Amino acid sequence: MTDLAPVVILVRPQLGENIGKAARAMLNFGLTEMRLVAPRDGWPNPAAGPAASGADCVLDGARLYDTVADAIGDLGRVYAATVRPRDMVKPVVTPQQAVAEIHGLERRAGLMFGPERSGLDNEDVALADTVMTVPVNPDFSSLNLAQAVILAAYEWFKAKDDTKPRIDRRQEDPAPKAHYQGLYDQLEEALDKRGYFRSADRKPTQMRALKSLFQNASLTTQEIQTLRGVIKSLTWAERK
Amino acid sequence: MTDLAPVVILVRPQLGENIGKAARAMLNFGLTEMRLVAPRDGWPNPAAGPAASGADCVLDGARLYDTVADAIGDLGRVYAATVRPRDMVKPVVTPQQAVAEIHGLERRAGLMFGPERSGLDNEDVALADTVMTVPVNPDFSSLNLAQAVILAAYEWFKAKDDTKPRIDRRQEDPAPKAHYQGLYDQLEEALDKRGYFRSADRKPTQMRALKSLFQNASLTTQEIQTLRGVIKSLTWAERK
Repeated sequence: MTDLAPVVILVRPQLGENIGKAARAMLNFGLTEMRLVAPRDGWPNPAAGPAASGADCVLDGARLYDTVADAIGDLGRVYAATVRPRDMVKPVVTPQQAVAEIHGLERRAGLMFGPERSGLDNEDVALADTVMTVPVNPDFSSLNLAQAVILAAYEWFKAKDDTKPRIDRRQEDPAPKAHYQGLYDQLEEALDKRGYFRSADRKPTQMRALKSLFQNASLTTQEIQTLRGVIKSLTWAERK
Repeated sequence: MTDLAPVVILVRPQLGENIGKAARAMLNFGLTEMRLVAPRDGWPNPAAGPAASGADCVLDGARLYDTVADAIGDLGRVYAATVRPRDMVKPVVTPQQAVAEIHGLERRAGLMFGPERSGLDNEDVALADTVMTVPVNPDFSSLNLAQAVILAAYEWFKAKDDTKPRIDRRQEDPAPKAHYQGLYDQLEEALDKRGYFRSADRKPTQMRALKSLFQNASLTTQEIQTLRGVIKSLTWAERK
């Protein structure tokens, strides 16, 4: 399996600012190759750089094309970001499904996005293999260009980065069980002195609840030291 | 299984425009409840509406709070959107993992986002249960506020239909955050009286470590009652 990052194709983008924002969204998730088809205000566009917030390398490397056909000539598969087309028979996938397919391709793929106001037109979509539609609230479904780009780029990055299991720093320095026992002994002794346990019958249950509570906290060695300091401090008056 | 949509908490947001964009991102993916903690320019903010592109219902329903503690008082679990904290021990999850957990909760969860320039500070993060970090290009990792919100909202929407709950007894009765706050207040007062905090400088760090520790224990309402009884008992001599 190869792992060729898809190119992002912006078709007739209107505002330089949105081109910049798309570049930023791409680079956030490791996509670096942008292609521009007939941007309305020409290229380069001075409004793009500031909006890219540092993703200048994407803008500097952007290539300019006159037509969609030119822009996708070397690509193995092209996804058209749009809602489901009414009068065309195309497979429709989510961004997640699209990137899963892309990760298995031997030739570079493209993700194609339309103009801000109108989106891709039927001629553009007809050149694509597949329609890519973001699952979205049907009652409020308009996504702007940079949002559409970032969701696709995000899915690409997630799929590439074989999502790791839940990271938990607590697992890096788990306190040995003996330290818990020291904490429990100290707590029990302090509570005994204060008359916390109303009856000998209930004491085992009460201590068990406390142990369970601290056990579930997955304490580090440092945290157990802290708790022992707290108990010592709270009982200080008696020690004097 | 319930399916309570999480609330989105914007902590000290700077620009009204970004509040509007966040509202739009939320509604795109079915999240409608926004909470604002001390927005820099007050609230309502005339710049928010135009940027929301029609998501006015989210802005109209936004509730205003003075502090993070107030804003999260009724929530069962809070995720802090930030990079991995350096000096705190917290579980770290991706947005995808976060929403998988949230779908199984019986009490509403919150997704908390910081100011545009600086992000959440350590005091804010200490009040959260879990850090939520977007997997992102390590060489270009800055996400703007609306981008961070949309990625979390998108994951929520995607998972809404088909996520199975994680089985966890503690999720059946998570203590509301206000109960944690009561515990922290009681503990701080008791430790103050005993001179536990050696210097005013170190006190915030020490309290943060303690809050983080209890936060990570995912306490039930009953367990918080137990801990408060323990503290009361340990300081009993003084009360006489």
